[in-house]
Amino acid sequence: MNNFDFCTPTRVIFGKGVISELPEALGALGKKVLLTYGGGSIKKTGLYEKIIGLLKDFEVYELSGIEPNPKYSTSVVDGVRICKENKIEVILAVGGGSVLDCSKAIAAGAVYDGETWDLITGKVPTKGALPIVDVLTIAATGSEYDCGAVISRTETNDKTAYLDSYLFPVCSILDPTYTFTVSKKQTAAGVADAMSHVMEQYFGNPSTILNDGMCAAAIKSLMINAPVALKEPDNYDARAQIMFVCTLACNGIFSLGNGLSGWPCHGMEHALSGFYDITHGEGLAILTPRWLKHILCDKTVKRIAQFGTEIMGVKSGLSDYETATQAIRKLYDFFVSIGIPMSLKEVGIDEKRIDEMAHHIAINEGLDDPSLFAPLSEQDIKEILIASL
Amino acid sequence: MNNFDFCTPTRVIFGKGVISELPEALGALGKKVLLTYGGGSIKKTGLYEKIIGLLKDFEVYELSGIEPNPKYSTSVVDGVRICKENKIEVILAVGGGSVLDCSKAIAAGAVYDGETWDLITGKVPTKGALPIVDVLTIAATGSEYDCGAVISRTETNDKTAYLDSYLFPVCSILDPTYTFTVSKKQTAAGVADAMSHVMEQYFGNPSTILNDGMCAAAIKSLMINAPVALKEPDNYDARAQIMFVCTLACNGIFSLGNGLSGWPCHGMEHALSGFYDITHGEGLAILTPRWLKHILCDKTVKRIAQFGTEIMGVKSGLSDYETATQAIRKLYDFFVSIGIPMSLKEVGIDEKRIDEMAHHIAINEGLDDPSLFAPLSEQDIKEILIASL
Repeated sequence: MNNFDFCTPTRVIFGKGVISELPEALGALGKKVLLTYGGGSIKKTGLYEKIIGLLKDFEVYELSGIEPNPKYSTSVVDGVRICKENKIEVILAVGGGSVLDCSKAIAAGAVYDGETWDLITGKVPTKGALPIVDVLTIAATGSEYDCGAVISRTETNDKTAYLDSYLFPVCSILDPTYTFTVSKKQTAAGVADAMSHVMEQYFGNPSTILNDGMCAAAIKSLMINAPVALKEPDNYDARAQIMFVCTLACNGIFSLGNGLSGWPCHGMEHALSGFYDITHGEGLAILTPRWLKHILCDKTVKRIAQFGTEIMGVKSGLSDYETATQAIRKLYDFFVSIGIPMSLKEVGIDEKRIDEMAHHIAINEGLDDPSLFAPLSEQDIKEILIASL
Repeated sequence: MNNFDFCTPTRVIFGKGVISELPEALGALGKKVLLTYGGGSIKKTGLYEKIIGLLKDFEVYELSGIEPNPKYSTSVVDGVRICKENKIEVILAVGGGSVLDCSKAIAAGAVYDGETWDLITGKVPTKGALPIVDVLTIAATGSEYDCGAVISRTETNDKTAYLDSYLFPVCSILDPTYTFTVSKKQTAAGVADAMSHVMEQYFGNPSTILNDGMCAAAIKSLMINAPVALKEPDNYDARAQIMFVCTLACNGIFSLGNGLSGWPCHGMEHALSGFYDITHGEGLAILTPRWLKHILCDKTVKRIAQFGTEIMGVKSGLSDYETATQAIRKLYDFFVSIGIPMSLKEVGIDEKRIDEMAHHIAINEGLDDPSLFAPLSEQDIKEILIASL
């Protein structure tokens, strides 16, 4: 077991009706609020109106129109400007992972005098951030319980993971009923995203019995509850269990003391959505079975076979290679069964920029570190991308 | 799935050699330190000297001699007095759950003008506490990652659970090598304590797939690693996995959104060690199989059978009652196998005060709440105690 240093200070208030806690949670942090949200679905569902009603004692400014794969040059820059101009004290993010990630970058930029991009890229250390409260409307990224943000800069095809302990939300308000209206496409992509978060942690070596069991339970819960939520979008228990797993899936608690995997599928997917702006969870679902197939070798086969028997329900009695191969097949079939387009071509990516993306990934993501579970060279990355076409 | 409100702000620094982080963790909180510890085993192992060496830039006061089942009238009162007299800024607890629990009560009492017992019993709300850093030397209670403290008052046979969010340690320093010298008796009792923490959470209804899987993995890890640590006390990986599970086992993360069990075995055990000062983990191990056997009925059998197949490894194909009965037997046998004395008589408790203890439990622990997984009347409690003799 490896050493670790872990802290997740975020308060999670979870369940039906917990929005009533919002004024108290927010009031403890300030009265001047920047409300951030996306394309306006919260206006259609009535959540916007409900929140504005709860905030009548606050001074509320707004930043709307935050896009999926949130953009530095528009949303982050605008948000930082609004915070500075109006001396905002607390950010209220209402939406999914993109709104939250964007809000985290804004929170850090708001208390820094220079260019926020320098914080995001780590050129300058982050020394503080405005407090963030969020109301989650989609279960997926786990950004509500971690200190990470992924920000895209379109002009350079960059999609950068920004991690800093100042970025933990102070309080996350999670009502599963707000996810009833999430489309089938986004529900499936959110589940795939969370499954990838768990798998990126599971494929670290060494691991512990507790970590392996937590990962297994998280993936099983998603695979059992996703079909229910897709068939009955307002099934509270299925939506709640999915939201619960997604929240715990990305803060590292499932892999404390594990060896490093390097999060290879995320590293590769950041280039796909950085270059083509595709849905993150779909990119991950497309890549993951191809990644597993590519790295399958004598060194990795036991762990992938363990994934097969303990998580994917492959029956016992087969060889390790047969078990691993069946596990990869079952994972692929599951993604198909929840309606995810399982090739890059189906999401609008062809072979034209494969070389360019493979090179971008190889020089930016550190996936060739020999201490990783399965190090990837530029050639490996290229082959995985081609196999995903 | 039920609503929940959860936050664990404690930073955990885990692994071999992490004591080197102590000066920085402590320095951020203050220079005037109350060092608390127990009977002096940390002097024998050299840990005391190492810590004093690391604290040469601090002003260190000491409270030693904190006993198992820490006592209000001596340790807590003394500690509060030392803090107030010397304007202590931070408490450094070095030891196991008893030292930590005692330090938590001291931390709250140190910033309160009245009687600390009123905070412990909830007569007066807790409005603050000194910050606590701890260096753990025994894996058991999970007090290093929760906001609870159990304090005994010998003159009234009271053993009271004190829970307040101000009681979370700021930072817990966990080096598994410090547990190499823990005796077989205390190693086994610590494992039994943590197993009970997990089971008290598991037997809440409803539960989720993730919670059930986390509980299963935690118990399996303890049952696999305990025999290894007992046979090879300096087996790092076994000690580390036990310490890791114990730390996560009591802060509630395994049962977020679950129904309430009421923590019946803890409620009953608090009377046993309140009246007789026995080892907490041994009391729990003795009670738990008798409790399960007593509550086994049509309403509970499915869940106990699930515990049997998913956690205790009972083979499939049996009836629910057969599975449940085998699970209880396997649990009992496991405790025997790690050397725990499995009857009250073996730990010095006879039938004399059974009625008195059953009455004390019935009026103090709220175990008859009809919303619990298996409510217990005073008669039920008495029968479980008698069956444990």
